[in-house]
Amino acid sequence: MLLNDLSATQAGDKIRKGEITSEKLVQACIERIDQIDGEIEAWAYFNADYALEQARKLDLIRQAGEPIGPLHGIPIGVKDIIDTAHVPTELGTPIHSGRVPFKDAWVVSRLRQAGAVIMGKTVTTELATYSPGKTKNPHDPNRTPGGSSSGSAAAVASNMVPIALGSQTNGSIIRPAAFCGVFGFKPSFGMIPRTGVLRQSTPLDQLGVFARSTDDVAMLTQVLAGYDEVDSATTFLRATPQLLSIAIEDPPLPPKIGFVKTPIWDRADKICKDAHEELCETLGENVEEIVLSPSFGHVLDHHKIIMESDLAYSFAHDYETTKEMLSDSLRSQIERGMGYSAVAYHRALQQQAIMDDILAELFQEYDALITPSAIGEAPIGQDNTGDPSFCTIWTFCGVPTLNIPVFLGENGMPIGTQMVGAKNDDARLLRTANWLLRKLNE
Amino acid sequence: MLLNDLSATQAGDKIRKGEITSEKLVQACIERIDQIDGEIEAWAYFNADYALEQARKLDLIRQAGEPIGPLHGIPIGVKDIIDTAHVPTELGTPIHSGRVPFKDAWVVSRLRQAGAVIMGKTVTTELATYSPGKTKNPHDPNRTPGGSSSGSAAAVASNMVPIALGSQTNGSIIRPAAFCGVFGFKPSFGMIPRTGVLRQSTPLDQLGVFARSTDDVAMLTQVLAGYDEVDSATTFLRATPQLLSIAIEDPPLPPKIGFVKTPIWDRADKICKDAHEELCETLGENVEEIVLSPSFGHVLDHHKIIMESDLAYSFAHDYETTKEMLSDSLRSQIERGMGYSAVAYHRALQQQAIMDDILAELFQEYDALITPSAIGEAPIGQDNTGDPSFCTIWTFCGVPTLNIPVFLGENGMPIGTQMVGAKNDDARLLRTANWLLRKLNE
Repeated sequence: MLLNDLSATQAGDKIRKGEITSEKLVQACIERIDQIDGEIEAWAYFNADYALEQARKLDLIRQAGEPIGPLHGIPIGVKDIIDTAHVPTELGTPIHSGRVPFKDAWVVSRLRQAGAVIMGKTVTTELATYSPGKTKNPHDPNRTPGGSSSGSAAAVASNMVPIALGSQTNGSIIRPAAFCGVFGFKPSFGMIPRTGVLRQSTPLDQLGVFARSTDDVAMLTQVLAGYDEVDSATTFLRATPQLLSIAIEDPPLPPKIGFVKTPIWDRADKICKDAHEELCETLGENVEEIVLSPSFGHVLDHHKIIMESDLAYSFAHDYETTKEMLSDSLRSQIERGMGYSAVAYHRALQQQAIMDDILAELFQEYDALITPSAIGEAPIGQDNTGDPSFCTIWTFCGVPTLNIPVFLGENGMPIGTQMVGAKNDDARLLRTANWLLRKLNE
Repeated sequence: MLLNDLSATQAGDKIRKGEITSEKLVQACIERIDQIDGEIEAWAYFNADYALEQARKLDLIRQAGEPIGPLHGIPIGVKDIIDTAHVPTELGTPIHSGRVPFKDAWVVSRLRQAGAVIMGKTVTTELATYSPGKTKNPHDPNRTPGGSSSGSAAAVASNMVPIALGSQTNGSIIRPAAFCGVFGFKPSFGMIPRTGVLRQSTPLDQLGVFARSTDDVAMLTQVLAGYDEVDSATTFLRATPQLLSIAIEDPPLPPKIGFVKTPIWDRADKICKDAHEELCETLGENVEEIVLSPSFGHVLDHHKIIMESDLAYSFAHDYETTKEMLSDSLRSQIERGMGYSAVAYHRALQQQAIMDDILAELFQEYDALITPSAIGEAPIGQDNTGDPSFCTIWTFCGVPTLNIPVFLGENGMPIGTQMVGAKNDDARLLRTANWLLRKLNE
């Protein structure tokens, strides 16, 4: 096994034990990037020397017997809307070409404290919206990797790094994770502070992670969870959830899982529908179908009002000064966003609380829901990043959601199932996901 | 001295010591109401039996030696937009005539826990906006008491009750307190939970108190301060401020007070300007004039966008179903409110944070600011409740603000000065106010 094929947890163990160095690990990842990134193009910024320099310093720290963090020496990809001090963060648009922040985002500070090696910046779509970046799907370069966290998903899927950061305002973590066949996790709204990350929409923006194992998902999320007084979404102080230790526990009782078609089931491809029927058969008595209240059918409209209004607010300066450098699709979104009234916005926002309450009740009975991550496999072509609509309800409600790469379609393309948990009970969701993975391997 | 002339603190002492009963105190207040409320009309709902029944129960509790609360046996007026279980709460509009909530507002529960006697519901303007209720100014029935907490201010000013609750979204506590010549205190935004109170505007609505002494202000506010998970403004948990004990302390150093004319100084009457010049002379070296950044001049516009948008959102049902029962002025506000875009709303809201930061810096140097509470004395006539604009900046920024009834104009009408403190340092503001009152009495 090549070092770049190890998970973060596996590689971290070896580094702690002195079996490998961070430099060796990072070198293996660099070789993998040199080998295939010409085709995949997962990176917006990559500089082997920058990565190696961090790795060597971290190796010296370990060799000196100083305390090391949970990600000591592990390379990570960071989505290019997340600020990195003195390293370009160009937000996926020529408008901000050459932009170099002088300060790390909150999450990047956390990564450095934990000992991670910032490997580089991964490609995002235009301002993390729908217009694609250059990245190709590692399973088929003629297909989209999904977006907006395109580079993070592709880099993890092709073993260029074991883990990466992404963000989701609609379907920007779960969808690319599904299309690229990796785990993608968007924790509960407010769990990871967003300070220093491009703002699209304060009530919708959520950070998350990509990995090739649930252990890595749990470990990385636990590192990133925290309180930051600058981000009002995190101002409700709470203990850091013990994701890693709880995720590997056996559930106290066999979990009860709800299979949810959602009101947009018609949009799903046959391959996706069939895969989920098969999954339900395998899970047998542990799963039952749930029909969501029809009010969830309106969530896509509510989400659109909030997101587009907020795009118009957040990107007002870019729109006013360099409108012609925006894609047609984003320009249209912004222009629609300018047209919504404050009253319509608040009505949509009110639905968040209402839907929240309905889901909270559901999760008193069910440990998790399963539902498709996307309408099917990654579509052919690079003109769009695929339909995010199977993610919208869960993003809107701020519940934790995990893409599990369980299926391979007939074209060898991955198809994901999405596992959704109760808000602020991310640990239970990961524990149930591990149970499900064991069940599928029986 | 008649019992109804006592402050809440004084009366509470006597009740604790067994020198008077709550029934006697409430009876004295009832007699006062019978005597003058025919002219003043401070009450939207008043039922002597309802008040006496509570008083007698509270007397039995004391006589039985059971624990008693800080407001044990003290009558209080409650603005008629604050829900009281099984007692009408009609919101100052015929649309909601006969409305009887089945649950107490959070603050009313707190009052009952503290042993208060809910004396009745005090008159509010229409839905707590600008169209006047029936209440007259106790100093001159030809003048407005101010609004929207008209009845609370008038009832306290005319010794019908020692204390009352009010609310402020623009100038609805400070202005009537100034016009009626009592203390009115609007604590920091988020200090008092608003659950069960008519919502006008989530980012602006703030609860507060009326009293005839700063001791009563401190005691009552301390009872009401708290955390309620339903009101997101209070979700930042913190210790209950020890207002009463700190307010009576001597300041560690002579306080430094900033006199602020604000960008709307031109609106102030000569009588108000003269009074403040005199006040500054009396305070001598403890005060210096501060010129606010010109950006504060735009706050009135920002405030208007937020308030009117939120009126349109909050009162949408009343508008859609019974538009003809709304006053012309409120209907116009709602219709303007429907026209603001979500982007304009968020831009205005962003200014709250910016202004907050500027004020926070100012309060590193100054213990408090003084500025007029209103443009002058209560205007003649009952067609409006007076200009709230001297309150707008402080409401917008959510800083604590206190009307101090220090002047009497040539017509015998009170004129207030407004003392403003640092956000979440309400105790320091009250301590400085007590210092100022002592200084004026030297």
